Amino acid sequence: MRIAVLGTGSGGRAHAARLLQLGHRVVVGTRDSQVTLGRTEPDFMGIEPFGQWLADYPGIELMTFGEAAAEADLAINGIDGANAVRVLGGIADQLAGKTLMDYAVPFVYNPERAHPWPTPWGVMPALDPVDSDSLGERIQRALPDTKVVKACVTQEQETAVDPGSVGGGDHTIFIAGEHADAKAQVTALLRSYGWRDVLDLGPLVSSRGMEMYTHMHSAIQFALGGARFGIKVVR
Amino acid sequence: MRIAVLGTGSGGRAHAARLLQLGHRVVVGTRDSQVTLGRTEPDFMGIEPFGQWLADYPGIELMTFGEAAAEADLAINGIDGANAVRVLGGIADQLAGKTLMDYAVPFVYNPERAHPWPTPWGVMPALDPVDSDSLGERIQRALPDTKVVKACVTQEQETAVDPGSVGGGDHTIFIAGEHADAKAQVTALLRSYGWRDVLDLGPLVSSRGMEMYTHMHSAIQFALGGARFGIKVVR
Repeated sequence: MRIAVLGTGSGGRAHAARLLQLGHRVVVGTRDSQVTLGRTEPDFMGIEPFGQWLADYPGIELMTFGEAAAEADLAINGIDGANAVRVLGGIADQLAGKTLMDYAVPFVYNPERAHPWPTPWGVMPALDPVDSDSLGERIQRALPDTKVVKACVTQEQETAVDPGSVGGGDHTIFIAGEHADAKAQVTALLRSYGWRDVLDLGPLVSSRGMEMYTHMHSAIQFALGGARFGIKVVR
Repeated sequence: MRIAVLGTGSGGRAHAARLLQLGHRVVVGTRDSQVTLGRTEPDFMGIEPFGQWLADYPGIELMTFGEAAAEADLAINGIDGANAVRVLGGIADQLAGKTLMDYAVPFVYNPERAHPWPTPWGVMPALDPVDSDSLGERIQRALPDTKVVKACVTQEQETAVDPGSVGGGDHTIFIAGEHADAKAQVTALLRSYGWRDVLDLGPLVSSRGMEMYTHMHSAIQFALGGARFGIKVVR
């Protein structure tokens, strides 16, 4: 399949690398390829420049968001929550009729929200929207001709693309969306990643719970001292 | 131990029955015992009148919130989220110096928030507070001399008091709070319920994530068609 990963952060890289390994044609979208490739220093999180990373994955192509979306049969949103609706809305035509898997979380970094535990970002992020709306629903409203499937929100993307690396893969991944065919497509993709327990949480309103779970995820991460874990629905 | 369960709903009943079985002296607090015992019809959720339920548990005593709190070494808050801060604030003296385990969720039932899936309550509840504060933190602020431990938020209380009834007990329960001695006391109680994996999420700010998880819990419940499940942190 031709798959576009929109965004060049660590989550997008995890999907791109795994999809390449699985034999897909992978294109990565960014705002401006020259700017992205021109970076030579790690970002504020210490993540290596995209160009350096890309050198290890011959076959992955970098292009603009619109070009990448136009190329793809299926797209994955890896654009940060604060910018996703605006950027995706700008390439609505190129995404029309396609499935968009969205794992983004609408974090807002408020430096006044100090977290009592040390965190990678120093403060406890807020969510906007929260409770009465979700980023997944906002993206779907901005892209009415695209089939949005919320997925992979409850894991780090590094473990979402390789569930077998945690507890032998015996944990649960969740999906939600309004389009059964798109959910079947995303389920097949997740199974190819190694997921055995893909739980359909129904309509896209369930994005709220998935996004709101991220505070629990952070708390568990701080308690365990690392993010290599998953959650399993035991029933 | 002498344990007060504050509140007469199904969650409080689950704890009271289990604690009696475990050999504790159990008192249940309510606003007005005569009113509570005078009810003869099931409530809007179809839950049997408290007096009928109580008849099956000789040894459990019903008294006012304040009397129950005064009797107890440890208290469990089973008062609904909308009323918990006000009621508990009114019996702060009786709870001073004691551990209060709080599993309440600050649901607000807004009839305009129709849920696209059938739910027991017909609408999707909102949370208030959410994200920037939590009920657990509010209760702690209202009761500065009490040691609040948030726990059992991520399960139905029927399974929280009997984890072995789901998946052989191989799931995870979470606690958070500012007082190590109170967390040790609650951990011991949870172990006596049968919990083997009690995960300490640190300070009470983690109540936010625990309470915000309830939307995920509801979505999983609707997906599975029932609430007899737990979540396990796989690591």
